[in-house]
Amino acid sequence: MLRTNLGQRIPEGMRDLLPEELAVQEGLEEKILTLFRHWSYQKVLTPTLEFTACIQPDIEQNDALYKFFDREGRILALRPELTMSIARLVSTRMRGADFPLRLCYGADVYRNTTVRHREFRQVGVELVGSDHELADAEVIALAVESLAGVGLKNYQFNLGHMGIFLGLMLEAGVDEGTQARLEEALARKDMVGVESWVRRSGLPTRVQELLLRLPHFHGGEEILDEVLDWSERPAIREAVERLRKIYRYLNYFGVQENVSLDLGILRGFSYYTGAIFEGYVPGIGFPVVEGGRYDTLYADFGVSLPATGFAIHLGNLLEQFSNTTTESADILVYGLDAEQIIRQCQALRAKGKRVEMALGTIEGDEARKIALNKRIPEILFVGEEVS
Amino acid sequence: MLRTNLGQRIPEGMRDLLPEELAVQEGLEEKILTLFRHWSYQKVLTPTLEFTACIQPDIEQNDALYKFFDREGRILALRPELTMSIARLVSTRMRGADFPLRLCYGADVYRNTTVRHREFRQVGVELVGSDHELADAEVIALAVESLAGVGLKNYQFNLGHMGIFLGLMLEAGVDEGTQARLEEALARKDMVGVESWVRRSGLPTRVQELLLRLPHFHGGEEILDEVLDWSERPAIREAVERLRKIYRYLNYFGVQENVSLDLGILRGFSYYTGAIFEGYVPGIGFPVVEGGRYDTLYADFGVSLPATGFAIHLGNLLEQFSNTTTESADILVYGLDAEQIIRQCQALRAKGKRVEMALGTIEGDEARKIALNKRIPEILFVGEEVS
Repeated sequence: MLRTNLGQRIPEGMRDLLPEELAVQEGLEEKILTLFRHWSYQKVLTPTLEFTACIQPDIEQNDALYKFFDREGRILALRPELTMSIARLVSTRMRGADFPLRLCYGADVYRNTTVRHREFRQVGVELVGSDHELADAEVIALAVESLAGVGLKNYQFNLGHMGIFLGLMLEAGVDEGTQARLEEALARKDMVGVESWVRRSGLPTRVQELLLRLPHFHGGEEILDEVLDWSERPAIREAVERLRKIYRYLNYFGVQENVSLDLGILRGFSYYTGAIFEGYVPGIGFPVVEGGRYDTLYADFGVSLPATGFAIHLGNLLEQFSNTTTESADILVYGLDAEQIIRQCQALRAKGKRVEMALGTIEGDEARKIALNKRIPEILFVGEEVS
Repeated sequence: MLRTNLGQRIPEGMRDLLPEELAVQEGLEEKILTLFRHWSYQKVLTPTLEFTACIQPDIEQNDALYKFFDREGRILALRPELTMSIARLVSTRMRGADFPLRLCYGADVYRNTTVRHREFRQVGVELVGSDHELADAEVIALAVESLAGVGLKNYQFNLGHMGIFLGLMLEAGVDEGTQARLEEALARKDMVGVESWVRRSGLPTRVQELLLRLPHFHGGEEILDEVLDWSERPAIREAVERLRKIYRYLNYFGVQENVSLDLGILRGFSYYTGAIFEGYVPGIGFPVVEGGRYDTLYADFGVSLPATGFAIHLGNLLEQFSNTTTESADILVYGLDAEQIIRQCQALRAKGKRVEMALGTIEGDEARKIALNKRIPEILFVGEEVS
């Protein structure tokens, strides 16, 4: 049936990957997943479709999911990320695993937004079952090494902690609604919004000032001492001391110079509870790496396990790399007799050659033209030349 | 938020792949895609979401698609296979490619049915721009070698041709509705249904008998001569002669013994026009390979190109293979001092070792237990033993 204009188009936010583009994405993914394996992470895969009851139980949340009904009228969604799905997997089929458990993935995720890429590749890790600062440091160091490993330069990571903001909220007795709106504005780095909310919040002047200063706490270990002057609150002190340990460990991992402490970051996903981090590369206006500790999510699935992890938005990094020249065949085989052509191709393939078979009778000139266009370095005529 | 029962479940037809299961699927896929590359096929990827106007323009068809609306109210669907999407891709961004064009893919596909796997992995090829019998033979031979290459035994391929059935329909002047229902019953090998339709069809007795005998024409080249006695119709003669050539070429490829001619097969997808084939393995009651020639589909996308190809339902083959033991780390590093542990891990990783880092202070006994459970062959204590 002849396609309409729409039927010849690709939906908004989707893309095709041509051989030379796919080669870039697969090359990056393979390098990063090889690195993950060297850090003892094992790859798993969860399905594209999940019940929203699993990945977004709060139906009132504006969640950017691709959603639809299944045959029984329940709501399905395309996975927007893997962390929830892996929590479901670990708390069911992998419940008896040896913890700490290190898992990794490479999968497409889907976000029903209006941004450029609504389907994009993610690679990431989850380190489940340890609340030790070494676990935080390991995943952050691995995230840094992942970007370094694919050859990116000038990437920058920011490291913060949910406990500082949450401690301030607790100290000031802020209600949930105000807290959620402030958190959202801070996460989006919408400083006009933050200021507007803070000024209307009725919070004590000291807390207002700290909140407005939060995004400016960016640098090395020295900023942690400053924070300790703010408050005696245990949640804040604990967050600071955890950050201090993690930051020192990053030095031992050899990645500290790529990581700044940044007390203003608050990741968009609601499940983060501890140290959180994000990675930027020049030319992309949003984090290409997002990660952090989430110690309460697993309890929502009935097993109480601390966890940390990160995801790299691989699909958004492709433009940072030039397309590789794609592999073509090693040799083009042509001739006049089908039997001879086929047998020759099979013999060459058996020797490990990548062989393109001419389909039908072609002349030497045409064979040379095909080889040139397809970047096939060698051509082979089989059979006797016709005189 | 605590998950409900539903929120801890996986949707029907979906599955998680644990490390040892995913390793099987990825191992099979890599072997097959390496083979495809040796036959000069280049890998592309199309998006998970397509407009139904692209992949299923006939909205009345019962199509087993996962469908939903986009933000503009247009209907999106999860791809049920790749052939349509690749036709869209080739007729747009790859319109200027050098034909014949050999493309391959490995991707998840989605079918909203009631069968066991509604999301499953497919690998396949499309050979676009040649109507030569060598092209048919090439893809059939490649399909056979794919199953052989992953170590399957006792697989069986059937090869038929749409032109024989369609020629009979044309000769008997059958209306479209009857033809569609007959085709569907034959494709499903529902012989009771076929007989019922044939008897009610009002077709000439001779055509009725041929239709009922179609599924029994199964064997070697000899059945082709029998068919020639049926009819002088050019469509039928041409189909027979093409099948004869293809079948002989399969002999040159060295795969003929795995392929039977079978005039009763009719693939379920409506776009097939020429030689069609299917592959079976013991223990799976439906074809795990489906393919054939589709010479009119590209015209529906505005470029007139003949094409042939196949898909392997890789996701349905996994149960044929036992799970591989998954890679664990080469070495577990533990000790008392975080700095020493981290630096030792990093040094070993720099040497290419897969290293699991103990998170926190553990004793030798615990390290040995972890190593045993996780199948890590070596453990290394760093630092001075405490006396």
